[in-house]
Amino acid sequence: MTTTPDITTTCPFCRIADGKLPAHVVLDDPDVVAFLDQRPVFPGHVLLIPRRHYETIADLPPDMIDPLFAAGQRVAAAVQAATESDGTFMAINNVVSQSVPHLHLHIVPRKRKDGLRGFFWPRQRYPDDETMEAVAAAIRAALGTINRQ
Amino acid sequence: MTTTPDITTTCPFCRIADGKLPAHVVLDDPDVVAFLDQRPVFPGHVLLIPRRHYETIADLPPDMIDPLFAAGQRVAAAVQAATESDGTFMAINNVVSQSVPHLHLHIVPRKRKDGLRGFFWPRQRYPDDETMEAVAAAIRAALGTINRQ
Repeated sequence: MTTTPDITTTCPFCRIADGKLPAHVVLDDPDVVAFLDQRPVFPGHVLLIPRRHYETIADLPPDMIDPLFAAGQRVAAAVQAATESDGTFMAINNVVSQSVPHLHLHIVPRKRKDGLRGFFWPRQRYPDDETMEAVAAAIRAALGTINRQ
Repeated sequence: MTTTPDITTTCPFCRIADGKLPAHVVLDDPDVVAFLDQRPVFPGHVLLIPRRHYETIADLPPDMIDPLFAAGQRVAAAVQAATESDGTFMAINNVVSQSVPHLHLHIVPRKRKDGLRGFFWPRQRYPDDETMEAVAAAIRAALGTINRQ
């Protein structure tokens, strides 16, 4: 379930989108809103949200994919230009590590040698190719189910 | 510039898309290809790419936004289901920390208490509201330029 009758009064991101909670808004469009994260990884760190309340990427209706990510492309270019950065990091946490359950795309300016490790998490290796293929097969099977919906 | 005459013979992700480099492919569509990252954050970590070579999100043509991210939505659901996870992490590194200069969306399964810090990087605070507003104004100005292109 993506909406409840009063979600727009309790969700902080809905309240920002409605202008009821102050924020440093950088984009205010019919479909999407973007504003500064109050605790940025680096200054210029923006959160881009669909104006309507959807909890995760799974809840986003098909006709909102393009508006959200086309805006993400534009905001990423603007964040990079405005902060004179070399690149950007764009990320969505779905459920786990998601601080506010209103879908939000992080757009973070990145500079070379900015002190952040690249893909920052400990990486693993699959024990063998058979294990890897079994994981791939499970994902393919799940995708087949999803594509048929 | 997003393409060079021989990029498809030198770019490892183009070679995977062309079937010239082996990979555990989970999705092989006309517009996009997805395959397992060889050094996953967690097993089931997938890289989703546009079949054609674009370096970063800035280079992706408007008509590829929906095909790429609609596939991302489906793949995220499949990865979460296939790995029996609680959520997903989706991320794009543009330029900085981008190991292969062919646009790729990381899709990583996440479980509660999986040991990864949520938004894992050191966060800052803006020294004051004026500083924060100046950053927001710079991004709005840059967005205005981009929207007019």
